[in-house]
Amino acid sequence: MKFGVLGSGMVGQAIAGKLVSLGHQVKMGSRSATNEKAAAWVKSAGKGASQGTFADAAGFGEIVFNCTAGAGSLDALQAAGAQKLTGKILVDVANPLDFSHGMPPTLFISNDDSLAERIQAAFPETKVVKALNTVNANVMVNPGRVPGETDVFVSGNDAGAKAQVTRILKDEFGWTSVIDLGDVKAARGTESYLHLWLRLLGALKTADFNVKVVH
Amino acid sequence: MKFGVLGSGMVGQAIAGKLVSLGHQVKMGSRSATNEKAAAWVKSAGKGASQGTFADAAGFGEIVFNCTAGAGSLDALQAAGAQKLTGKILVDVANPLDFSHGMPPTLFISNDDSLAERIQAAFPETKVVKALNTVNANVMVNPGRVPGETDVFVSGNDAGAKAQVTRILKDEFGWTSVIDLGDVKAARGTESYLHLWLRLLGALKTADFNVKVVH
Repeated sequence: MKFGVLGSGMVGQAIAGKLVSLGHQVKMGSRSATNEKAAAWVKSAGKGASQGTFADAAGFGEIVFNCTAGAGSLDALQAAGAQKLTGKILVDVANPLDFSHGMPPTLFISNDDSLAERIQAAFPETKVVKALNTVNANVMVNPGRVPGETDVFVSGNDAGAKAQVTRILKDEFGWTSVIDLGDVKAARGTESYLHLWLRLLGALKTADFNVKVVH
Repeated sequence: MKFGVLGSGMVGQAIAGKLVSLGHQVKMGSRSATNEKAAAWVKSAGKGASQGTFADAAGFGEIVFNCTAGAGSLDALQAAGAQKLTGKILVDVANPLDFSHGMPPTLFISNDDSLAERIQAAFPETKVVKALNTVNANVMVNPGRVPGETDVFVSGNDAGAKAQVTRILKDEFGWTSVIDLGDVKAARGTESYLHLWLRLLGALKTADFNVKVVH
């Protein structure tokens, strides 16, 4: 399959690298078509990896991952262009973290709204699925870094899109349990969980952790 | 031991009932000393159970539980009076849920503040420990309703108070794993988790669930 990955940071490199390693074609999108981090990634990732602008990557992918920093996500998606994203699944992995007031970060959208909802509202013809934002980038594509079976979540308005993302999470990334939390407003839940995630990071002193929902 | 339990709702009855069943003396506090729900509870709970005003319960307890609805917590604690709470541990079980805009509720304090922080700021001579607000009332006092070992959390500024609450959670309530998340600001994490908890409630269709943190 052909994937677009918006963002060349740690999350983008993890997602894009995993997809290439599985044999997919992946275009990493950045503000500039010659972004140095993306160029370095293309060189190291090898066959199937390419780079371009946000618009290039969005147009290339049958499915597009938003791996930009939350604060830049809407700008990056506007740069990609609604037309390039029309009818496509956008897997939103970003968190609306606000580091401007120091550590720990707060969220610049929360409580009665979420980044995923803002994106869905701005791109009504795109099927936004919030996923994977509750785990560290390395864990996203390698669930085995956390022992046993733990959970990730999908939230979105399109059942078919959630089913397809769930299949990718399971068959490609190796997740064994994916919980459907409901419509895109459920992203309030997984994005607000960041406050707890950050405290657990501090308590556990490792980012290789996750939660298992037991019932 | 002598406990004060502020609140006569589901959470107050669960906590107070468990403490009485363990042989402790428990005074349930309400706005009125003759609150009917509290009276019914005293009758059914039997030996060790009593009722009174918020001030009566706060004065009675060596340790006090805040089991009031979040929206009424600060008023209830003001009614109890700072003097009655001075030097004591206040276990804050409440969540700042705002149902005024319909379902699902939002939080009336969140992101860069928390109910526990507001309480600690208003009662600086009281040792506030946020705990148990991440599980349903029945699970709080009966962790076995969820299979296997799952986690609850403590947050607060006083290490000794957190250690004492942890001991109560383990030895009295039966929790086997209690994670110390740090100072009282960590309550932002466990309170914001309510957004995810509410969505999990919808997805799982039972309140008998909890998370296990795996690392």
